[in-house]
Amino acid sequence: MALRLLGISGSLRRQSCNTGLLRAAQKHLPAGVTLELADLMDIPFYNADIEGKPASVSRVLAQMAAADAFVFACPEYNYSIAPALKNILDWASVEPGNALLSDKAAAIMGAAYSRGSSRSQYHLRQVCVFLNLHPLNKPEVFSNVLAGNFDKEGNLTDPKVEQMVADQMQALLSWAERIKP
Amino acid sequence: MALRLLGISGSLRRQSCNTGLLRAAQKHLPAGVTLELADLMDIPFYNADIEGKPASVSRVLAQMAAADAFVFACPEYNYSIAPALKNILDWASVEPGNALLSDKAAAIMGAAYSRGSSRSQYHLRQVCVFLNLHPLNKPEVFSNVLAGNFDKEGNLTDPKVEQMVADQMQALLSWAERIKP
Amino acid sequence: MALRLLGISGSLRRQSCNTGLLRAAQKHLPAGVTLELADLMDIPFYNADIEGKPASVSRVLAQMAAADAFVFACPEYNYSIAPALKNILDWASVEPGNALLSDKAAAIMGAAYSRGSSRSQYHLRQVCVFLNLHPLNKPEVFSNVLAGNFDKEGNLTDPKVEQMVADQMQALLSWAERIKP
Amino acid sequence: MALRLLGISGSLRRQSCNTGLLRAAQKHLPAGVTLELADLMDIPFYNADIEGKPASVSRVLAQMAAADAFVFACPEYNYSIAPALKNILDWASVEPGNALLSDKAAAIMGAAYSRGSSRSQYHLRQVCVFLNLHPLNKPEVFSNVLAGNFDKEGNLTDPKVEQMVADQMQALLSWAERIKP
Repeated sequence: MALRLLGISGSLRRQSCNTGLLRAAQKHLPAGVTLELADLMDIPFYNADIEGKPASVSRVLAQMAAADAFVFACPEYNYSIAPALKNILDWASVEPGNALLSDKAAAIMGAAYSRGSSRSQYHLRQVCVFLNLHPLNKPEVFSNVLAGNFDKEGNLTDPKVEQMVADQMQALLSWAERIKP
Repeated sequence: MALRLLGISGSLRRQSCNTGLLRAAQKHLPAGVTLELADLMDIPFYNADIEGKPASVSRVLAQMAAADAFVFACPEYNYSIAPALKNILDWASVEPGNALLSDKAAAIMGAAYSRGSSRSQYHLRQVCVFLNLHPLNKPEVFSNVLAGNFDKEGNLTDPKVEQMVADQMQALLSWAERIKP
Repeated sequence: MALRLLGISGSLRRQSCNTGLLRAAQKHLPAGVTLELADLMDIPFYNADIEGKPASVSRVLAQMAAADAFVFACPEYNYSIAPALKNILDWASVEPGNALLSDKAAAIMGAAYSRGSSRSQYHLRQVCVFLNLHPLNKPEVFSNVLAGNFDKEGNLTDPKVEQMVADQMQALLSWAERIKP
Repeated sequence: MALRLLGISGSLRRQSCNTGLLRAAQKHLPAGVTLELADLMDIPFYNADIEGKPASVSRVLAQMAAADAFVFACPEYNYSIAPALKNILDWASVEPGNALLSDKAAAIMGAAYSRGSSRSQYHLRQVCVFLNLHPLNKPEVFSNVLAGNFDKEGNLTDPKVEQMVADQMQALLSWAERIKP
């Protein structure tokens, strides 16, 4: 099976643990499946007054168009979604027919200081309803940052969480295959 | 009673209906109560790697520090909070002791294309739990954009919604007075 | 296509509008598809101390086991799920392997006094994550009770809502077919 | 200060850990403050067709009327609120003027198998918006059942959680005093 996944991390930090989860996911993909990462660094806030699309936005939207499915690394800021992650979805959602997102599979993982970013992930799931994304139910990946699960560069070091990430990638591939229109 | 309110609109559009709700609120305040508006236009995404605070951020955080209570105009983008609104709260939340926000009263209003932004407002209420803000329970202000409630400049033109806004401002003043530490 | 749907209404009222939505759904099914209704009237609250299963529970659980997919008519009581609906899902969830529910498709519709029961439906969607149910994203069916959409017996009389119900049934059949394991 | 608290546990099990949290709370109240427990065992599902109120319901509603503030022990069943807890709030909410609940303070605590019942508690907080209850923001009490925090009778045995419960009771008393109309 050939499948193109796009990973989007809501954290802009260089040493983000959430981005680290995506790098871990890249290690657990079968041949033929790729997981590219989106770069949100220069994306401006969505604003309907902006005419045309900034190049940084066009670049990520092109990646989204090419993706068969998404992997969201979803931090939790103040009990909800990180604005950078929400914002790129908002940019994508105004494309004609919601064609970049609609009817595609998604997996959600996250690292946070408490409850493993679960509060934020359920908000993201509600966003998926409107965007007509199909997030995987299980396994959920909740990783606590404080537990020493990551090194200073944000690399995942905990084998238990790594197994959850690997299991989630496998489940995503099955789910994406299964719901293929 | 003298009270300083800060209004924060999640929409960056010049003709935003949500910002229009805040302008409507300004017309319904008793003497001594002021409602200043925050300008989020140049606020960057929160990123722990950024050293120091950009001037645009410092300016709004100073307004937040001076505010006795908040009025959030909360759009709904894809069933959740507008990133610009969430982002300024994230910036504020990392100030020592959460002193800009903690233990202050808030009112939430919103305009959207369906359900009056309610879905987004409940996400914002969950954010308030962590930030230790005390949002008013009632009246909730849900305004539908499609119903012709606003003119082209985003000014509120529907007298029924305007009454809800006026009632909410009155309730906010009572609530802020009542919970004053 | 032969498909067995089970409709579960969270309202116990004889003249419930939510149950009325399910009756409307029954009129819009192709040949071979059936939509049976569960009777929750005598179901007790789930309580792990109860030994054995009451007959009323066993009867509904048998219907759930036989169902290929679910249609939930989801009232909104005080901004969340009606206990009778939540409770039968709780009873079902403790069956070995969650076999009655896991991996099945579902549609969610609702009638309420404001916002069409949307607040309640998003809570139900979060429940579906744990239960590994796959609710349809679209179309969502939100019906306001006050708008004269129902007669005194709870029968749906508004053709616009009826069309939404019919569209949702069609979408459910496609979705159930598509995700069939 | 004299204050009457009413504790309501969403679990009907005799050895419920959630009810155990309420018993722990009873040990940490100053003189003059009482925490009575509601008995939900015989409460039927709310149903608008039922004429009159069953005696079991009247008894608990009388306790609610007499209470100055509430302590909710909120289990998590399938990522949302236990029906028995939601149901008694539904019964109370139809009393004239919502007088049993409106404008009273509340504290929320919970024990669950994962995430300390947080998912369920945020749903309960949304319910509080409509009921015009004022739940404490902090401290939140999340207790994991698996961690050996409770004995077989459901008594709280973990001193760290017990301290959280004690802190929450103290915060509730301050909050109830502060928001007293």
